[in-house]
Amino acid sequence: MLVDTMHNTRFQKVFDNMEALALEQLLVTDPASIGWLTGFSVDPGERFMGLVLRLGQEPVLIINDLFPTPEDLGIKLMGYRDTNDPVDIVQELLDAQKPLGCDKNMAARFLIPLQERKAASQFVLGSKAVDDARSIKEPFEIELMRKASAINDQAMEWLTTQVYEGVTEAEIAHNLLEEYKRLGAQGFSFAPIISFGAHAADPHHEPDNTQLQAGDVVLFDVGCLYNGYCSDMTRTFFFKSVTPEQQQVYEIVRKANWAAAQKVAPGVLFSEIDAAARSIICDAGYGHEFNHRLGHQIGTNVHEPGDVSAIHHEPVQPGMIFSDEPGIYLAGNFGVRIEDLILVTENGCEVLNNYPRELRVLE
Amino acid sequence: MLVDTMHNTRFQKVFDNMEALALEQLLVTDPASIGWLTGFSVDPGERFMGLVLRLGQEPVLIINDLFPTPEDLGIKLMGYRDTNDPVDIVQELLDAQKPLGCDKNMAARFLIPLQERKAASQFVLGSKAVDDARSIKEPFEIELMRKASAINDQAMEWLTTQVYEGVTEAEIAHNLLEEYKRLGAQGFSFAPIISFGAHAADPHHEPDNTQLQAGDVVLFDVGCLYNGYCSDMTRTFFFKSVTPEQQQVYEIVRKANWAAAQKVAPGVLFSEIDAAARSIICDAGYGHEFNHRLGHQIGTNVHEPGDVSAIHHEPVQPGMIFSDEPGIYLAGNFGVRIEDLILVTENGCEVLNNYPRELRVLE
Repeated sequence: MLVDTMHNTRFQKVFDNMEALALEQLLVTDPASIGWLTGFSVDPGERFMGLVLRLGQEPVLIINDLFPTPEDLGIKLMGYRDTNDPVDIVQELLDAQKPLGCDKNMAARFLIPLQERKAASQFVLGSKAVDDARSIKEPFEIELMRKASAINDQAMEWLTTQVYEGVTEAEIAHNLLEEYKRLGAQGFSFAPIISFGAHAADPHHEPDNTQLQAGDVVLFDVGCLYNGYCSDMTRTFFFKSVTPEQQQVYEIVRKANWAAAQKVAPGVLFSEIDAAARSIICDAGYGHEFNHRLGHQIGTNVHEPGDVSAIHHEPVQPGMIFSDEPGIYLAGNFGVRIEDLILVTENGCEVLNNYPRELRVLE
Repeated sequence: MLVDTMHNTRFQKVFDNMEALALEQLLVTDPASIGWLTGFSVDPGERFMGLVLRLGQEPVLIINDLFPTPEDLGIKLMGYRDTNDPVDIVQELLDAQKPLGCDKNMAARFLIPLQERKAASQFVLGSKAVDDARSIKEPFEIELMRKASAINDQAMEWLTTQVYEGVTEAEIAHNLLEEYKRLGAQGFSFAPIISFGAHAADPHHEPDNTQLQAGDVVLFDVGCLYNGYCSDMTRTFFFKSVTPEQQQVYEIVRKANWAAAQKVAPGVLFSEIDAAARSIICDAGYGHEFNHRLGHQIGTNVHEPGDVSAIHHEPVQPGMIFSDEPGIYLAGNFGVRIEDLILVTENGCEVLNNYPRELRVLE
């Protein structure tokens, strides 16, 4: 017996996907997927937590007794203690004669023992059944994603007021958390990337004590968590001055970001959206300096499966939300990235970020 | 060619352990293990990062081109881009005729494709080769662990000055970060557990907006990161008053914590240390309410493999550091936990935390 209609519907979508994939049993271990399906999750650390889904049978959540569970969870629970082996419980629930769909994130310390005991006839990746269901956002999820991105737009404007000669990346990152909370968010959706000068050429730079200097590029790649949903947006500014080369690179990235957004509509392939941005950057001679996929899906996790990349040839569908984040990175010199979140709609798309993309020199 | 003697020695320990385990090839994917071995690591998120170790051959680090690597890393690097499949590179390096030791944390999304391609003759858990090497701390690591725990002792004293009627768990947690930084640490080693009243009965409670009231238990389970090394310590206090039952439970936990520490010496089994604490709690009738292992090893990760538990029958060795954290949890009522870090020495042990364990009522 499931708790409510929303979670019931979600389980049904996953069961339907399992049937389509000819998977009769699935083991979900990703805490975010478990939370999305049941309404309850914890970070179990090194301990096992898994949701066993079998067609035509009640879902079972296996969790260490250490973690208190809501009394009204409405799905079957099987507990274990630190001195029990949870793999025993999983094995007991599985049909050893049938293949098992495994969570993409399932750790080898659980998967290999299940294989050694021959707990299933075959072990295949099965998270697609959950990931595909999660990737089509429900109307209330879309509302929360809009709100998370609206807060992020406001935070970006606030960030532009925080730059002055000598301020450090780490200081701005530190103060951003308070600003997000003031704006109604609960926290970061990921550790903010705040990069001055040559640091902007490292797409994942961690804010440090580098001080801002005139002539620096200022890159903000930031996101907040709003009622469990993530925002993620990048803008690149210039402090005090901008060189012709910086200006040129900026405009290429801006065109690439825009071209990808223009391309988005139901039925268009993820790879075509990537190509729309990438071809502009390649044509301008910076193909090698755009060293990552165009984007990733996003929702309750900041990175959800289903890349916007040259090797993902599925069509986008209404309700999907992903990032459009082309960049050009000139090692040791500077980098530019412009990122928005895009929602696929029935007729095209809605860009969830409204913060301007025009080149801006901050004084 | 390896960068320096320290990392060279670490690689040698792991190669020796591989030989002892009859493992000729090992794939390390845990970012902390990669960092410990090479001096460099990143959090690769959903992207693959792996260190391939083969007896008699140079180690190879496979990493996405997106992540800048130090020029003087001194070990062989093989890069890939988002549109390449890193599993191809791993397969190319492995001997398909021999078993592969797999990292305990390796995700199924990489392990299952390697298995489907038969990249090795067998896939077994192999991280013990790295984990055992990491678990014997080097002298400079021990110094850093001592310092991290000394800061934690000071932070605990500071925490006792933060309690007053109406303060929330979340407020104290928030301010603690600043205090750690003031004391010279770089941040939290884990999200602090600050629990008032019945929340203390949930060993992993997350601080919320609950306000402190007279008569509440106040549990602080906190740790900081100092130059890459973790501290972790718990004390339980009483606010304004303490009941006879609380006092009794507290004294049982205190005795259990002490009995375990008294037991620690080289050659004693982890399970015997767990038993020393557990027997006291069981004899007092609270065995079921002590619902977790006695402790975990700790170092650059806050939880490292090799539990102090009833099912771990290996002997402790000089240089190992683990937590001694018995607790009694009375659901809906209150909980008590007392935790110290213990270093195994040549002759016995050194308790790294010196904050008093006597029952204290805060006013």
